[in-house]
Amino acid sequence: MDYAKRSLEKHAEWRGKIEISVRAPLDSSEALSLAYTPGVAAPCLEIQKAPEKSFDLTRRWNTVAVITDGTAVLGLGDIGPEAAMPVMEGKCALFKAFGGVDAVPICVDSKDVDAFVETVRLISKSFGGINLEDISAPRCFAIEQRLKACTDIPVFHDDQHGTAVIMLAGLKNALKLVGKDLSAVRIVINGAGAAATAVAGLLMTAGASDLTLCDRSGAVWNGRTDHMNDAKRELAFQTNPHQRKGTLSEVLTGADVFIGVSAPGMLTTEMVRSMNRDAVVFACANPVPEIFPDEAKAGGAAVVSTGRSDYPNQVNNVLCFPGIFRGALDVRASDINDAMKLAAADALAALVSEDELCADYILPKAFDPRVRDAVASAAALAARESGVSRI
Amino acid sequence: MDYAKRSLEKHAEWRGKIEISVRAPLDSSEALSLAYTPGVAAPCLEIQKAPEKSFDLTRRWNTVAVITDGTAVLGLGDIGPEAAMPVMEGKCALFKAFGGVDAVPICVDSKDVDAFVETVRLISKSFGGINLEDISAPRCFAIEQRLKACTDIPVFHDDQHGTAVIMLAGLKNALKLVGKDLSAVRIVINGAGAAATAVAGLLMTAGASDLTLCDRSGAVWNGRTDHMNDAKRELAFQTNPHQRKGTLSEVLTGADVFIGVSAPGMLTTEMVRSMNRDAVVFACANPVPEIFPDEAKAGGAAVVSTGRSDYPNQVNNVLCFPGIFRGALDVRASDINDAMKLAAADALAALVSEDELCADYILPKAFDPRVRDAVASAAALAARESGVSRI
Repeated sequence: MDYAKRSLEKHAEWRGKIEISVRAPLDSSEALSLAYTPGVAAPCLEIQKAPEKSFDLTRRWNTVAVITDGTAVLGLGDIGPEAAMPVMEGKCALFKAFGGVDAVPICVDSKDVDAFVETVRLISKSFGGINLEDISAPRCFAIEQRLKACTDIPVFHDDQHGTAVIMLAGLKNALKLVGKDLSAVRIVINGAGAAATAVAGLLMTAGASDLTLCDRSGAVWNGRTDHMNDAKRELAFQTNPHQRKGTLSEVLTGADVFIGVSAPGMLTTEMVRSMNRDAVVFACANPVPEIFPDEAKAGGAAVVSTGRSDYPNQVNNVLCFPGIFRGALDVRASDINDAMKLAAADALAALVSEDELCADYILPKAFDPRVRDAVASAAALAARESGVSRI
Repeated sequence: MDYAKRSLEKHAEWRGKIEISVRAPLDSSEALSLAYTPGVAAPCLEIQKAPEKSFDLTRRWNTVAVITDGTAVLGLGDIGPEAAMPVMEGKCALFKAFGGVDAVPICVDSKDVDAFVETVRLISKSFGGINLEDISAPRCFAIEQRLKACTDIPVFHDDQHGTAVIMLAGLKNALKLVGKDLSAVRIVINGAGAAATAVAGLLMTAGASDLTLCDRSGAVWNGRTDHMNDAKRELAFQTNPHQRKGTLSEVLTGADVFIGVSAPGMLTTEMVRSMNRDAVVFACANPVPEIFPDEAKAGGAAVVSTGRSDYPNQVNNVLCFPGIFRGALDVRASDINDAMKLAAADALAALVSEDELCADYILPKAFDPRVRDAVASAAALAARESGVSRI
């Protein structure tokens, strides 16, 4: 189907995928006096005395800002703030439909990290959380780190951490299926950008020990000099324990798991064939994967996952961000930390029962009605147990 | 009625007076593919080619940001960003209910003019207009002026210009009733802050020639040295053509019109008695006016207006801002200029027919269903005629 043409027509018809609705009655002078002046002075004064009451007396408790600078939108790259808005609106619509979260799309017209951070910091008291979206690497790392430090609400770059949570959930179930252990498998991640970095980090936090990232220059290792930056130097230090060098094809030989967050067609049937028995292939470049499932299976892959809804095992961020923010907001978390991400991944993996688990079903479907509450409850509980909940 | 107590209870019950609603279907994989990836890339690319298409393919065409720094909230003063939110949410609810405008409340956590302007500028491409709210004088003048210069969407400080539009509309009808002409009457405005400055400016643009502002130090005149600032020096230069000096009581003697945007109880029956015959008194301090209508009438006032809904002739900003933004958005205006404000005031005044016009009915009621379209049409037409419309 020609999604591009139909989507454009639909967007011209919708003229906005979200809108504002009114929750308070405004149909009489008395109603106005309660929702607005003079009555509204009372909640204002209560919040002035105790600013945390903004979570009780306004919509802040349920409101997340979806914020981008338009520098890494989908696979389109740096298309600017206005052009990023259809994605941000779509994300906000998903937040409401899949998490009951009120999300406000905001596109910041600056590629300067300082300006972006300061802008978001200065508006952050209007919101209960910040979902960063489609910000290019390595800028996104500094932006998230600095915003986490200077605000007291959760800051979450979904392209990184949402993806990582779902990858971990899917990988847990895939490894269960092939009888391998996360701590023992050899993992190769193709890509060394924002998502790859977060996936590597979360997999290691979850117990993965042998993990190597590749970019266009091949394996990232400690001492490599071409196409490096601060983020990759850090990765080189933290990953690749055996300091493997060489091309993707070379380091993939004998590996148990391929995770692609890179570009179409990067993986061939031959390369899959060179992997260890019962290989797991997550080919998540979107919309065209690193390898199509049939080709991966022809190379002997036991489990294949993509970012596409028309193949099994879709890695779809909508499985994670609505529920994880729902949980964070429900306990007024000050952060979305690793404990919450691990718990969310476990909850997602657990939705696939041992009876149901098979090569074509390692992750729940996007429309599975159990997902939201399972992820939200797990994230909320982990927030409490890790001490970042405030109610 | 104890509005404070009831309003607080209601705010705790509502937990937000606005929320986000979803306009696009999201109930199937195919629906997601149109509203989000992969289809959403198509509208993104269209907007990248021609950024003004953000007004056709996203909600920007109908969306206004309601932005404050929390420095002059209601009569409460500088209560900070969190505490300002109940007012901003209320304003956004009124925008939707009375103008069909989607409005997003944003509280900026900085009192620095540069930081505020830069923050709003950097997020302005997400919106079709900016409604500034509850920002203290004289900072609000520089903020509005600079934002008008550095954005290409309407920027409107409602506390100033919305108030001015309604004052002008009411004054036109009041003067018609007493048979006086705007260009010939002597007007005294008590207050020299944001609203007073805007009222003075719009009345002079509409033809008023003899207008004097008073503050706590009495008349503002060219050469006064106590309690002056740049804004007042400018006012001293533009107003008070006869350079009257002295207290409010002194300059009010013989005046035709009193306009109060100041503080409770500033006007006495005796002072009204000293005014010219058929005096017009707009006592708009809120919720307690400069003088109550009975006391003003006892002093001989022919027409009395207040900010209260429980007396006739309420000066209520909801008569103006929803319609004027509706009109501006409808023609994608780049500005809300004087021509649009004058046209909105004329439209409001004209809603009171000659047959109906009397001392107790000089302004339409807030719930008059004709107001929105009358103001919007007038503002849109004036935008076209003054060359600021873009469709």
